[in-house]
Amino acid sequence: MEERLKRIKAFVFDVDGVLTDGGLLADRNGEFYRTFDSKDGFGLRMAMMGGFHLGIITGGRSESIKMRFLACGFKPENIYLHSRDKMEEFADFCERNDITPQEVMYFGDDIPDIPVMKACGCGVAPADAVQEALDAADLISTRPGGKGCVRECIEKVLKLQGKWELDVETYKQKF
Amino acid sequence: MEERLKRIKAFVFDVDGVLTDGGLLADRNGEFYRTFDSKDGFGLRMAMMGGFHLGIITGGRSESIKMRFLACGFKPENIYLHSRDKMEEFADFCERNDITPQEVMYFGDDIPDIPVMKACGCGVAPADAVQEALDAADLISTRPGGKGCVRECIEKVLKLQGKWELDVETYKQKF
Amino acid sequence: MEERLKRIKAFVFDVDGVLTDGGLLADRNGEFYRTFDSKDGFGLRMAMMGGFHLGIITGGRSESIKMRFLACGFKPENIYLHSRDKMEEFADFCERNDITPQEVMYFGDDIPDIPVMKACGCGVAPADAVQEALDAADLISTRPGGKGCVRECIEKVLKLQGKWELDVETYKQKF
Amino acid sequence: MEERLKRIKAFVFDVDGVLTDGGLLADRNGEFYRTFDSKDGFGLRMAMMGGFHLGIITGGRSESIKMRFLACGFKPENIYLHSRDKMEEFADFCERNDITPQEVMYFGDDIPDIPVMKACGCGVAPADAVQEALDAADLISTRPGGKGCVRECIEKVLKLQGKWELDVETYKQKF
Repeated sequence: MEERLKRIKAFVFDVDGVLTDGGLLADRNGEFYRTFDSKDGFGLRMAMMGGFHLGIITGGRSESIKMRFLACGFKPENIYLHSRDKMEEFADFCERNDITPQEVMYFGDDIPDIPVMKACGCGVAPADAVQEALDAADLISTRPGGKGCVRECIEKVLKLQGKWELDVETYKQKF
Repeated sequence: MEERLKRIKAFVFDVDGVLTDGGLLADRNGEFYRTFDSKDGFGLRMAMMGGFHLGIITGGRSESIKMRFLACGFKPENIYLHSRDKMEEFADFCERNDITPQEVMYFGDDIPDIPVMKACGCGVAPADAVQEALDAADLISTRPGGKGCVRECIEKVLKLQGKWELDVETYKQKF
Repeated sequence: MEERLKRIKAFVFDVDGVLTDGGLLADRNGEFYRTFDSKDGFGLRMAMMGGFHLGIITGGRSESIKMRFLACGFKPENIYLHSRDKMEEFADFCERNDITPQEVMYFGDDIPDIPVMKACGCGVAPADAVQEALDAADLISTRPGGKGCVRECIEKVLKLQGKWELDVETYKQKF
Repeated sequence: MEERLKRIKAFVFDVDGVLTDGGLLADRNGEFYRTFDSKDGFGLRMAMMGGFHLGIITGGRSESIKMRFLACGFKPENIYLHSRDKMEEFADFCERNDITPQEVMYFGDDIPDIPVMKACGCGVAPADAVQEALDAADLISTRPGGKGCVRECIEKVLKLQGKWELDVETYKQKF
């Protein structure tokens, strides 16, 4: 496992149930609003400062997803909304960022995530993922989705690679 | 129980406390917003692809309920808002979809749901339903309302009927 | 206790921490939005149909509070927003509804509620009230605020008084 | 510890994970909405009536943060949004309010808070802070962020200093 984690150069995430607890607040127009986690957000900014590629592959369509992750340092072209076959977007992400699947840690919690979880370098499932996703995962976080799963696993990788140190000067310039 | 579940051709749901945890976020105009669950949503899409009839019978009046379930493949005429006597809407649903009450799995968590829970083929209560609904249920989910109750029971029925397989090509066309 | 509960003719509520879990969602203008509970809502409608007086005394100022409780059958003059000394509003409520303090069950979770909890016929604290409110209460619900405390205690009173039966015909006309 | 707490003249707070549970509800424009706690709010008003200085130092940028805390009696100049190096704002807060670092209780839950937690008179971490913040804290609350951490520690200080008594007349005039 340690060898796998040392090779990781990118973090790619499903959204619902991974970066949220799966809750979807519906407004009058059928638009969904999601609740993200501040500790996960700090982890994402650390990964961005550490030079990792960051991506989103979600079936969701909400513009709010894009807005939230642009603010963490994601490039717009690495945020895939409205995905219906995640393997397609995963292949596109790897090509576009010039990395191999083995260099990606992918986070998923449900059945549509499983092919990517198996194809990537390390598939992560939150503690409260569905059973099939837990079975497919290389790594299961102790925390559930939207409550620190993402922070926990980013931190594990950055510490192993010696990149988990807050550089306040860089932080001030980037955020 | 297994025989009952094999006969099911339709899933009908109360909303508050079943597809949500019962929480109602109130805005300035007295309109309510509800939080749905992404894993339940995937279960609903699987049921839709499996050819099941899907219905909502709720006392709620919010347009947001209609918008949310249209997106999962519910037909507009099968979404009954502002219900005051659920047996009336249940009879209408069965007639309109040309099915018998015994072919319906109905999900409810409170007293107004009990007559339909008793009249249908399998009455389901979430783990955190009121005692009277738990007593009336044929099946009690291990998960509470808004946190996987619906996913759990749809999955149980579809697996028994051999329909729990994600067909990515169909999925891409439908959603 | 049973004698006290048989005398109750009115239910009066603090809002935050009683009819909600204490959460206040803040918007850009400093307006707060609150999450209410559907099972509590059914209890309130049962109390209304049973002929009980219903009141709100809250320090909150949001118009959304008024809108939410008008929908449950509260009279507008029995909804006191922006309260700073709850004993004043409590006296006004009793006079206006022509009842004695001993005929009121009051629900509170924090220090400003304690004088009314002690002055009324039965002071109720949710399971997660502050210690001082728990100490002052005649009755502590097994459920926390915003998660069934109100339903549990209304149900207890109505059952003792033989009024906990859903009359579907009345329900259809009133809601 | 008791001596430290008796010296406290000001309470300064990180927001996310301290005055909230870390949840960030994102809207279509990337604006975040946060859920505060009513019992924490009562504690803040008690501190304000007791003559304590109150401050916010947060990396967040939302105008809703400012609006929420102005309502609790915070001075606008003591609310620092968009902080990137909390030590700078902390020094500014102390100078502006003419107090020493030793007279401040600072609440933080994550790595950017640690320097201030160590520099102040008493660094507090909520029960669910990250491990590094728990290690750096002088005091760890029994309650998590957004669920009473702030109330618990304000109450502890005010009781030690003999200032935890609700003066209804003052309360009516101030809020």
